[in-house]
Amino acid sequence: MAETADAPLVEVHRGPIRECVHRGHAVIWHNDAGMIGAWGNADAYVLPRSSAKMIQALPLIESGAADTVGLTPEQLALACASHNGAATHTDRVTRWLSDLGLSEADLRCGPQEPSDIPARNDLVCTHTAPDQRHNNCSGKHSGFLTLSKHLRAGPEYIDPDHPVQRAIAEATSAVTDEAVSDYAIDGCSAPNFAGSLSGFARAMARFAAATADGGARQAAMVRLREAMMTHPDLVAGEGRACTRLMRAMGNGAAVKTGAEGVFFAIIPEHKIGVALKISDGATRGSEAALAQILANIGVLDRAHPVFTELTHGPIRNRREVDTGHYKVVNDLAKWRP
Amino acid sequence: MAETADAPLVEVHRGPIRECVHRGHAVIWHNDAGMIGAWGNADAYVLPRSSAKMIQALPLIESGAADTVGLTPEQLALACASHNGAATHTDRVTRWLSDLGLSEADLRCGPQEPSDIPARNDLVCTHTAPDQRHNNCSGKHSGFLTLSKHLRAGPEYIDPDHPVQRAIAEATSAVTDEAVSDYAIDGCSAPNFAGSLSGFARAMARFAAATADGGARQAAMVRLREAMMTHPDLVAGEGRACTRLMRAMGNGAAVKTGAEGVFFAIIPEHKIGVALKISDGATRGSEAALAQILANIGVLDRAHPVFTELTHGPIRNRREVDTGHYKVVNDLAKWRP
Repeated sequence: MAETADAPLVEVHRGPIRECVHRGHAVIWHNDAGMIGAWGNADAYVLPRSSAKMIQALPLIESGAADTVGLTPEQLALACASHNGAATHTDRVTRWLSDLGLSEADLRCGPQEPSDIPARNDLVCTHTAPDQRHNNCSGKHSGFLTLSKHLRAGPEYIDPDHPVQRAIAEATSAVTDEAVSDYAIDGCSAPNFAGSLSGFARAMARFAAATADGGARQAAMVRLREAMMTHPDLVAGEGRACTRLMRAMGNGAAVKTGAEGVFFAIIPEHKIGVALKISDGATRGSEAALAQILANIGVLDRAHPVFTELTHGPIRNRREVDTGHYKVVNDLAKWRP
Repeated sequence: MAETADAPLVEVHRGPIRECVHRGHAVIWHNDAGMIGAWGNADAYVLPRSSAKMIQALPLIESGAADTVGLTPEQLALACASHNGAATHTDRVTRWLSDLGLSEADLRCGPQEPSDIPARNDLVCTHTAPDQRHNNCSGKHSGFLTLSKHLRAGPEYIDPDHPVQRAIAEATSAVTDEAVSDYAIDGCSAPNFAGSLSGFARAMARFAAATADGGARQAAMVRLREAMMTHPDLVAGEGRACTRLMRAMGNGAAVKTGAEGVFFAIIPEHKIGVALKISDGATRGSEAALAQILANIGVLDRAHPVFTELTHGPIRNRREVDTGHYKVVNDLAKWRP
């Protein structure tokens, strides 16, 4: 990430004061035409964090593992999810692990308090500690375990040299057209492979342009994007931007947030991929910028409340007083494909 | 805030990748020598948010209201607090309101779920909604009510034209040496008066250099800074940077965070004030930068765990794996008074 090359993308205003600014990088890639839009540094070197879960799920399908155990579209959506830890998510993870002959103890993602309030309150009031199924990445890890079992590999599937992670590194390199040389450890303890933002946008454009009869990789891409768009509630949860945006767009796009201000989108009808990163890591900045780009491309209705809320607000305080708003800047709102 | 003039202050690294950067403005002001350190734009025009609570509490003392009802140092610390809503905070607010012949319904800050986990869990499991006493600003608002009663003013003490807020605007102008012309509505519905970062650093230096026999304003400044340093647990709460830093420094400094990346400090033994603002609003950035400045000035021991944790980390994930660290940049770590 070249800090000198990032661009102001989203401002936060309170009363008459511009209170904050979120700088970042964004790339819009058309599968045939190449890069059709960029702000900041298109070659910014980033960790995709959870926005790469669709890429991380490719080997699960391409290996035959998913079909061997009969994974459903719901499970594929969960494999790409950063979920809220609601019962709808954890119940499915519990059954998935059980179907594999495994249990919560086989996960390596670590425990996390659910962001879903009813689930959190239920744990608190029954004096039950959250476990690894509540981790927002437990679907991804269930996918990892499914692939690991299929490959007859060892239990430490998060080791960077484990066959599961080697397959993910290879898939990442193939879909981004870049050698994968660096990784960091993610919040869920899995390796997260670094790459350029343009490489990830190119990968998302491939997901967008993929066809069911285009070979094993493209067929896997189609199944993952369709699973996400069909089950937006499983990809995140109530109140979350991914879920709300996918619901608002019908089958217009599959979108996935990542920690530290990353957001990727797959827009099949336009064969377009989007990858953006807010330099400071702010989720509110990534959500505003992505919603604006989705509207510019024409898949998100500007009249939909989620567009207005994410790109403008209002920002309300604890008495529901309107105290400020967001503003997408740097001509991001004017760009058209 | 001139976005072109802010400076990178704190980086976030994960594995081999620089994942995020926090830009901002910081000013160090000596009461006799003037500005002795600055990064970014010293004249950045900012909302001080909760970092200005010491200024907002000046009229409470200067008017005689505090002494008329016999406010204790604990109550003065609460008047400057953004507290966690723990029982230690809300019990004191309840008694304070009762002593005034008032109740929770007289507050205008709005309800807020406590960040204190035992208090939160107690509310959740007794199916009790949080009320306005749990709002992190309820101590400040109790101070406003104390002053309002003393002035025999009306109940809507958060109106910008209410005598309480007019007194605060005048005090803000006097201690910053700047005309106050703009305000925004804060999260707690009170007006928050804007000013330059250098103006606020100058104000904090005045708090630092104030003496008990220097007149009514200086005496009020001494009482507020002493109350904060004596009761760091009441200014924020367990686990919070303000509380931990003040405990680590003994009576070395009074420090106060504010929303959207603001942090102010009062350092009496050096007659120094500090005011900083992270442009993107990140608390982690403001905490790292402030801890570094406090150590540079010599009031925070570099060997203390809170210094290491706030300026470096490590950043640990949900399995307590060390995944990254913070790095204070732009020669901020090299600066000395």
